[in-house]
Amino acid sequence: MQKLEKTISQIGIPNIKKMTEAQNRLDQLTKPKGSLGKLEKMAVKLAGICSELYPSFDKKTHIVMAGDHGVVEEGVSAFPQKVTTQMVNNFLNNGAAINVLAAEVGVDLKIVDMGMIDNINNQKLIIKKVKNGTDNMAKMEAMSKKEAVDSLAAGIEIAEKSIKSGSKVIGIGEMGIGNTTASSAIIAVITKAPLKEIVGFGTGLNPKGLKNKIKVIKRAIKINNPDPEDAIDILAKIGGLEIAGMAGVIIGGAANNVPVIMDGLITGAAALIAQKLKPEVVNYLIPSHKSVEPGHKNVYKQLGLSPFLDLNMRLGEGTGAVLAMPFLDSSINLMKSMATFSEAAVDNASA
Amino acid sequence: MQKLEKTISQIGIPNIKKMTEAQNRLDQLTKPKGSLGKLEKMAVKLAGICSELYPSFDKKTHIVMAGDHGVVEEGVSAFPQKVTTQMVNNFLNNGAAINVLAAEVGVDLKIVDMGMIDNINNQKLIIKKVKNGTDNMAKMEAMSKKEAVDSLAAGIEIAEKSIKSGSKVIGIGEMGIGNTTASSAIIAVITKAPLKEIVGFGTGLNPKGLKNKIKVIKRAIKINNPDPEDAIDILAKIGGLEIAGMAGVIIGGAANNVPVIMDGLITGAAALIAQKLKPEVVNYLIPSHKSVEPGHKNVYKQLGLSPFLDLNMRLGEGTGAVLAMPFLDSSINLMKSMATFSEAAVDNASA
Repeated sequence: MQKLEKTISQIGIPNIKKMTEAQNRLDQLTKPKGSLGKLEKMAVKLAGICSELYPSFDKKTHIVMAGDHGVVEEGVSAFPQKVTTQMVNNFLNNGAAINVLAAEVGVDLKIVDMGMIDNINNQKLIIKKVKNGTDNMAKMEAMSKKEAVDSLAAGIEIAEKSIKSGSKVIGIGEMGIGNTTASSAIIAVITKAPLKEIVGFGTGLNPKGLKNKIKVIKRAIKINNPDPEDAIDILAKIGGLEIAGMAGVIIGGAANNVPVIMDGLITGAAALIAQKLKPEVVNYLIPSHKSVEPGHKNVYKQLGLSPFLDLNMRLGEGTGAVLAMPFLDSSINLMKSMATFSEAAVDNASA
Repeated sequence: MQKLEKTISQIGIPNIKKMTEAQNRLDQLTKPKGSLGKLEKMAVKLAGICSELYPSFDKKTHIVMAGDHGVVEEGVSAFPQKVTTQMVNNFLNNGAAINVLAAEVGVDLKIVDMGMIDNINNQKLIIKKVKNGTDNMAKMEAMSKKEAVDSLAAGIEIAEKSIKSGSKVIGIGEMGIGNTTASSAIIAVITKAPLKEIVGFGTGLNPKGLKNKIKVIKRAIKINNPDPEDAIDILAKIGGLEIAGMAGVIIGGAANNVPVIMDGLITGAAALIAQKLKPEVVNYLIPSHKSVEPGHKNVYKQLGLSPFLDLNMRLGEGTGAVLAMPFLDSSINLMKSMATFSEAAVDNASA
């Protein structure tokens, strides 16, 4: 618990002076005020996070966390459970979508075993296995509170290590068959929105499978009765090891003034857990895309964030996060390199 | 007229065989079917446009066309008319948002005078001036039919020149104080949607200014009575020289199997003109962002396209187009470099 509490206590607030400076600069640039929309808001946010008018994100890290889910035995996924391990091997062999995108953007990719059932022997894999998959939350708690806290601490450690080695921004993503089920449960408990509004087809359920998934989540919440105000209780009862790990990465990033880029639904559940632990983490969270999973909009609403990309994606792995990473650089480059009205001798709008 | 008619007649249909090949390949890759959303659809579209499974977009060109609008004398813009010239100078001096983004993405940037009131003496500026600004469409035709056709032909020529020098994709953008007014008029006439639904604040009108803008557009349409089925008639009566030029670029791209990336509202009006001239151009058009201008959604609906970026931008210049360009590469890289289920020994979803 100590590591977690200590890190949470280190989370401050962004540098308001630098944010004001950024806003003033943006308002002098040769464009209608505010016309670069979310890119301007991002530039201001990044200046505040990094306490620097023009932060550089030259070194980027993307962390993919893998974990298995006991609830898969309830038939909640279109893919068999062993695909978690198979896909992690695919990551390690550079065969997955996230490998292609990370290489394109020049991102350092870290793959973490937070709790797969299988053990993979590969030195490229970071082992932080807290448990060999969660237990079936439709029958019992997914994990113990200690395991939830250990997973959070593991995430913090990985974030800290990345930051120590120079990373200026961290993306998060995941792999875990069954994890839209755990995530939807978390989102339902925290946002209090009805399951019908939140639960989606995941990797490709049919309508019958979706009905079953909703029933299973309803049962898991009923049996475990998580306290909606207690993030650790929620994580332990209906969470996932990779979800806890990603919440830890968010906390570790925020505590060290490093922005963390979210991906889809599952990273959204992790963000809600992190927000519950310390509301100020949202100041350090950068959204990326809008997932096909319906519960993702509830996540963004609860966080007060709005996504940049609308690609109808539902792949996970952090693919949306990595696709959005260059926009951080763009937002700062625009603020830094555009001419001002007076430099360019351009007339401003009439008041 | 000959150049235009000849080029339109060269527009074919995409290569269905390559599109099928692309779809088959995508469905074998290690991801849930369709989970890369619009990136998958784009990969298929690009394979069809380029008649190649893995086209390369190593050389990219972005064309910014400038023109002035007589209707500015009706008080439809928050910025004075001379800002068109000032901003074109800013482009030529690398001070604008589009310069920053083009440099970031590695895009060859071409600035074209399609019809500014002023003459700028700078060898970096491509001169295709058809007329020194349009006439005030609230009082008379904006230009003659011959001038509309000449502007279209000029756009075709610029597209052809870019393609001949190796460009594999073309972005379009614009600068022209008053051009959301002309664009909104075009969009209203072609989509038949009510002006209240289409017309927006442009570069930053106040509510009173918006009301006046709607009134001016209504008058322009009433006085000129453009034939909604005749693109040239629409362009001449309520169009703009840069809008006609961009429609020409779209036609030139489509005729040469080169994708053209749209930007915001004004490029949308150009796309509707191009679609009216030859409906098949939509097969060669790539959307980029969703503008704050309300009429942009009407454009996408009419074209049957859906944007990738949701950045609340309203700057023009083609900033959204250039921001989206790397996604073309990403979509093809994913299709080309991801492992298949069998290569990676990953189980596929149960049927």
